[in-house]
Amino acid sequence: MLRTCKRLRQRQFRDVGRLSEKLPAFWESTSVTPHRYSTKAAAPNTNLDAKQVIFSGIQPTGVPHLGNYLGALQQWVRLQNSAAPSTKLLYSVVDLHAITVQQDPKQLRQWRREVLATLIAIGLNPDRSILFYQSSVQAHAELMWILSCTASMGYLSRMTQWKSKLSLKDDASPLDTSSKAKLKLGLFSYPVLQAADIMVHRATHVPVGEDQSQHLEFARECVTNFNHAYGPHLVEPTTITSPAKRVMSLQDARQKMSKSHPDPRSRILLTDTPNEIKRKVMSALTDSTNAVSYDPENRPGVSNLLELLSHLDESGRTPSELGSVYSGLSLKDFKTILSDTLSESLSTFRDQYHKIMAEDEGRYLDHVAIKGAKKARESAEETMVLVREAIGF
Amino acid sequence: MLRTCKRLRQRQFRDVGRLSEKLPAFWESTSVTPHRYSTKAAAPNTNLDAKQVIFSGIQPTGVPHLGNYLGALQQWVRLQNSAAPSTKLLYSVVDLHAITVQQDPKQLRQWRREVLATLIAIGLNPDRSILFYQSSVQAHAELMWILSCTASMGYLSRMTQWKSKLSLKDDASPLDTSSKAKLKLGLFSYPVLQAADIMVHRATHVPVGEDQSQHLEFARECVTNFNHAYGPHLVEPTTITSPAKRVMSLQDARQKMSKSHPDPRSRILLTDTPNEIKRKVMSALTDSTNAVSYDPENRPGVSNLLELLSHLDESGRTPSELGSVYSGLSLKDFKTILSDTLSESLSTFRDQYHKIMAEDEGRYLDHVAIKGAKKARESAEETMVLVREAIGF
Repeated sequence: MLRTCKRLRQRQFRDVGRLSEKLPAFWESTSVTPHRYSTKAAAPNTNLDAKQVIFSGIQPTGVPHLGNYLGALQQWVRLQNSAAPSTKLLYSVVDLHAITVQQDPKQLRQWRREVLATLIAIGLNPDRSILFYQSSVQAHAELMWILSCTASMGYLSRMTQWKSKLSLKDDASPLDTSSKAKLKLGLFSYPVLQAADIMVHRATHVPVGEDQSQHLEFARECVTNFNHAYGPHLVEPTTITSPAKRVMSLQDARQKMSKSHPDPRSRILLTDTPNEIKRKVMSALTDSTNAVSYDPENRPGVSNLLELLSHLDESGRTPSELGSVYSGLSLKDFKTILSDTLSESLSTFRDQYHKIMAEDEGRYLDHVAIKGAKKARESAEETMVLVREAIGF
Repeated sequence: MLRTCKRLRQRQFRDVGRLSEKLPAFWESTSVTPHRYSTKAAAPNTNLDAKQVIFSGIQPTGVPHLGNYLGALQQWVRLQNSAAPSTKLLYSVVDLHAITVQQDPKQLRQWRREVLATLIAIGLNPDRSILFYQSSVQAHAELMWILSCTASMGYLSRMTQWKSKLSLKDDASPLDTSSKAKLKLGLFSYPVLQAADIMVHRATHVPVGEDQSQHLEFARECVTNFNHAYGPHLVEPTTITSPAKRVMSLQDARQKMSKSHPDPRSRILLTDTPNEIKRKVMSALTDSTNAVSYDPENRPGVSNLLELLSHLDESGRTPSELGSVYSGLSLKDFKTILSDTLSESLSTFRDQYHKIMAEDEGRYLDHVAIKGAKKARESAEETMVLVREAIGF
């Protein structure tokens, strides 16, 4: 019914398999400083067989930025388009996770819609992938409770996400004086809900960013605990990951592009107009050398811009190659080229997005949400029937 | 359809208002050593007005014993029978709570049925009160998650139930070495699910035992937290409690009659046969004085038996009065009288119970559960519609 962003989609098809690019941040939470963990992540696998179920989630924090797209959402579309017909795909707007920090209800409602519309506008097809709001499927919370009965407090207290969300040190304990005053149970037990999200749909493959590897490890632990207690009913998920490059902030190339950065010029939203893009790119922080060269160590600002251009480059040139191509230009002229390329790349998405948001006075999006919720409930119920029976309910 | 225990019900009607008797243990968990707390419990209130909702729960740990009946279940029946027609009553077999400790699935399934059958056999009318398995209503877990996002880790860590269940000291912390190895998130966050149980049905009145007063205080805290964040949508429950006398163990009059006591002779199950009752009463631990007198301080064993007899006495005589009446008897003869009285009191219940369990080859009980689940889901959904709207879902 709705055509998806042509330019972006053309690139996606061409890009299938180019997994050395940035990879998805699972349950991408833009207010979290990323951490690096060692992880036993499985090798990237896009050659999915008949029995596979792919699941991932994104928090509703408004229109995603370019980092979200290149880091996660682009991969979701690729997986959809390269999956075998029998592969089930579920992509969730994880609003139950969003409320682990205080939200404004009106804004949350709007953000949910914006994220759902984004998923469709980038090329996820609601007739192929199950797109749904997490809060529409009660089984997520139901399985979360069940898993929490075998989830270790000790393990959870060592997780780092709640610490970073509260700006606490990595060695903080949930009951330190500094933690106790702020820490809510929901934020602390977040990884168990995340495990339930995956397991309730019997996901076999979960695209995640490396900052979520720790949570996927924990999810596998939850499977082990449950299956040990009640029999082999839950499926251990395989992580789809790879060494991810990040899209960095336009205002600080040492930091990931993030929704939570106080300066909106630090990020390009997928819906930004050409004027907004131009303003942000032109004011991107570089250095005092008015020339173009790729040198991430000494010139992080301009190198970040070259990386960004490389991600969008139709010919697939590396940042270093582009650095040579544009070495004769002033920073201003180079920024103009980047800005134009960004505007051009995002134009079809932007049109699609606004069309989807407005379609049938917003009812089209409601329709997608209702249909997705129904399918996701059915998917979850298949698992819950097994789980309840195994427990003795 | 099924007539309820006549003898017990006759007493219930006569007993309405006699709240100085033992009172209900909410979410009675027979494996927990009771604690005493100071509490701001509301005054007993059985004069319920039009807008009231009564909720309570019982764990499925098999056929309840006399302590469960006199301490909690009897009160549930009284509340049902004295409630205004517009009062909604919900009584739940709280199986989601049961799995906070390891359960055998086959046994749990059987225990759930036994407890549901007991509720009907004591006089709860499935056409009047909503009787349901907690796990049949997903909204309990859904609201639990939502409440957990505003529930303080510090407050939860000070709760005592998880400590007593793990046989830890009252000042134990969830992350002490001794706690960490054993403590699961489910057990730790149990009070939040309990709060959700109450709130999801907008309960105004909750009959509880004094060992659960701390949890009701916490539930009120959850209401405050939620309403502060999202507006006045949840109802603060009033506790129905009173200074409760306990039914003590037949093998140790200093301990509450409990399902978890290793010696089955310590408790009278509601389904015990006259022979079983006789065997248990005759072997009840008393003292070396072969005479009857009421002296709780110096003669706890025989005093406990007099209290038991007093609870069942048709004329409502006190233990002290009964002590005088039977002062001429040997302990053996007195025990025979108690044993006969118990057998007589429980005979109709026993018949009803077995009839209900067998009715229509067990399908009657399934039918009650299905009908109760449907009504409870509708009741919960009324609240969840408000809650989801308030949050921005």
